[in-house]
Amino acid sequence: MSKTSEIPYKIYLTEEEMPKAWFNVRSAMAKKPAPLLNPATRQPVTLDDLSHVFCRELAKQELDDTTDFIPIPKPILDFYKMYRPSPLVRAYFLEKELGTPAHIYYKFEGNNTSGSHKLNSAIAQAYYAKEEGLTSITTETGAGQWGTALSMACSFFGLKCHVYMVKCSYEQKPHRREVMRTYGAEVTPSPSNTTKVGREILAAHPGTNGSLGCAISEAVETAVSTPNCRYTLGSVLAQVLLHQSIIGLETQAALKKYGIEPDVIIGCAGGGSNLGGLISPFVADKLNGKSNCNIIAVEPASCPSLTRGKYAYDFCDTGRVCPLQKMYTLGHDFIPSASHAGGLRYHGMSATLSELYDQKLMEARAVEQTSVFAAAEQFARVEGILPAPESSHAIRVAIDEALRCKAEGREETILFGLTGTGYFDMVAYEKFNDGSMCDYIPTDADLKASFAKLPQV
Amino acid sequence: MSKTSEIPYKIYLTEEEMPKAWFNVRSAMAKKPAPLLNPATRQPVTLDDLSHVFCRELAKQELDDTTDFIPIPKPILDFYKMYRPSPLVRAYFLEKELGTPAHIYYKFEGNNTSGSHKLNSAIAQAYYAKEEGLTSITTETGAGQWGTALSMACSFFGLKCHVYMVKCSYEQKPHRREVMRTYGAEVTPSPSNTTKVGREILAAHPGTNGSLGCAISEAVETAVSTPNCRYTLGSVLAQVLLHQSIIGLETQAALKKYGIEPDVIIGCAGGGSNLGGLISPFVADKLNGKSNCNIIAVEPASCPSLTRGKYAYDFCDTGRVCPLQKMYTLGHDFIPSASHAGGLRYHGMSATLSELYDQKLMEARAVEQTSVFAAAEQFARVEGILPAPESSHAIRVAIDEALRCKAEGREETILFGLTGTGYFDMVAYEKFNDGSMCDYIPTDADLKASFAKLPQV
Repeated sequence: MSKTSEIPYKIYLTEEEMPKAWFNVRSAMAKKPAPLLNPATRQPVTLDDLSHVFCRELAKQELDDTTDFIPIPKPILDFYKMYRPSPLVRAYFLEKELGTPAHIYYKFEGNNTSGSHKLNSAIAQAYYAKEEGLTSITTETGAGQWGTALSMACSFFGLKCHVYMVKCSYEQKPHRREVMRTYGAEVTPSPSNTTKVGREILAAHPGTNGSLGCAISEAVETAVSTPNCRYTLGSVLAQVLLHQSIIGLETQAALKKYGIEPDVIIGCAGGGSNLGGLISPFVADKLNGKSNCNIIAVEPASCPSLTRGKYAYDFCDTGRVCPLQKMYTLGHDFIPSASHAGGLRYHGMSATLSELYDQKLMEARAVEQTSVFAAAEQFARVEGILPAPESSHAIRVAIDEALRCKAEGREETILFGLTGTGYFDMVAYEKFNDGSMCDYIPTDADLKASFAKLPQV
Repeated sequence: MSKTSEIPYKIYLTEEEMPKAWFNVRSAMAKKPAPLLNPATRQPVTLDDLSHVFCRELAKQELDDTTDFIPIPKPILDFYKMYRPSPLVRAYFLEKELGTPAHIYYKFEGNNTSGSHKLNSAIAQAYYAKEEGLTSITTETGAGQWGTALSMACSFFGLKCHVYMVKCSYEQKPHRREVMRTYGAEVTPSPSNTTKVGREILAAHPGTNGSLGCAISEAVETAVSTPNCRYTLGSVLAQVLLHQSIIGLETQAALKKYGIEPDVIIGCAGGGSNLGGLISPFVADKLNGKSNCNIIAVEPASCPSLTRGKYAYDFCDTGRVCPLQKMYTLGHDFIPSASHAGGLRYHGMSATLSELYDQKLMEARAVEQTSVFAAAEQFARVEGILPAPESSHAIRVAIDEALRCKAEGREETILFGLTGTGYFDMVAYEKFNDGSMCDYIPTDADLKASFAKLPQV
């Protein structure tokens, strides 16, 4: 029962009320996501397989689909207290602007220097690496949020951090790069001549601007060939969704304080880490019959893995060195056209979210970037926060849903994840402000060609 | 009595606990700041004089040195709830890093899109302009925080906002400019040919990069020559310190919850808005004999108005169109050498802070920017927040004080103002990371030449 009149603009938990364990949504699923496959043997990966690439505790978390709550180690909890709990905001001003009877809430993850939710998993991955006695970790970054988050986490635990940054981002976003350097990270534009795979790609494609798939391959090669080093990934993986469940758990605890039940839950989905984290406890409630909320994944029309992809085993990276995952995919060779939501330009999707989508526990919508930026600007002007392009996909659909409520005269409760801020995305805003932003939609022929290269499993 | 063990990482007030009135520190001072003088008559300015430039309610606040508490209008209180209360953070990680027995707290004003405390006064100034029936306001901006804050505030109240941005900043900080445009502001590089004073300056100094003093003159000219338009200023003025007192009032309320009394209070000082706001209630306690805390203003060695300036009447702007103010000043013709703390590059200082300094209620220290950035980076790595160069001046001295406590074995409580974030200052961080940052200190001869041009009053 909602006590609407008393709801503040921002609902904060106290530090004592913060969740002490992450929630593993797979434990609640009767039909689990399909297992990862070893790319060489095509058999389900073992703990030993994964432990060559990831540190062992994280490999365990990756494979564990039965434990429900996994305690958060105290050093991670303490770090969380630097920037968490994050606020759950009642969007009173947006509601007024739209003239909607809907109640809109958003969980804002941008109040930290990484500018996004990525820090929630970065600090966990750095912690376990430190505990295992590793001295360095590698990763790739596209838009730069994950690389920034991991740099911060490594700096905190005294680990060396080597980030392969997609070359075009490295050149177009020197400020993101500089934040990583300020946190002590080594940042290499990818493809580079520091790895075998990088040299091969440079030889085959001189002058290439790089891609996320290539940067992953370089980061993995460096991790497995460097002593006391492992690779880390900021999305897609089950372990990442686990760490990101802190978002959903905090949200649920904050809503419960005021007796609020969401009718619609919305999140942007690239690899799925934010949406997966936000919805984890709510999915469990749906599966237990405690909730009937509608969950909506929002993806860019330029990279529509859920709405136009195939549910099949595919490689997670272009270099095909990572395990195969059953997921909604556009094909590992699919190159999304230029868009300003770098964090959503991934050909696949979290296996967990893919399975939830396949089980019809979640729906998906694809939106075009000009309509996304229009929503971003409308939101920024009334709610004060300049959102990241990725996050603005969720804003677009939240506004659409609020307008539907207005048309239907329904007082629904809409919750969305506001994953981060757009301070490093002003080139994109400039294009939008100048009216020179374009939309890109892959043709059916593009997708057909890409699907033809899916591995036979 | 401090209940140390229970103090959380971040102390938040509830929305009900937020201050409902601003505090006018001048009301507590037996000897008041000297009156502003009309630049033409050299007589104390009248309400009518000021009302040509500022809207009337703000002009009243500027002249009112006796009322103690001024109620915050409800629309401003509601806007404050979008990003306030701001957290008072216990710097546990910094204390551990330094190995100091001191307890360090900082009031963090950077969790909003303007990236600083400037929004606290911008929303007030926009509100009163709207109430008066104005349709547009003008201002100048250097580093861009104030221009961004005012753009956000005007967008919220549906006012047209015209920002004159110092030309070199306009070109070097296109992303700041774009945030302002996203909030609907018109941004003009200054000097421009849109004003008489701009055209004169361009004719006299072709190819000039502009200065804050010139941008002020253009913004004032546009305000007084446009119907239903007034000028606004983001620092220096008594009205701005009044609005910024929300910082100090929230801080004091948060400290009182845990029975904490600060021994040292530190803030950076350019025009003085942040420091003045932070210390306002604590100064009253000092004057009432309730507190014996030491207040430290930190300024850049490149622009040392308190530590090396003269306490004299001077012009607030280079164009000499604004009222004369008695303040610590380096002379209105003083051009601070290039430094990365654009927000501290002002020749003068708030009259209120100047008077407090003159009465020895506050001390001042000047610090060099390389040592400031070293402190910034040390802070960022353990406390997670990437601070603005301006704010980092306060961090430098907070660390120095904490190390003094360590050397002396004293468990003092240190409080400092962390005014904002450095996301738009990565060019400066890059110079520091590359080892190519320089320090600048004006010579005695420079200052002597500048003092010679002080007006005779």
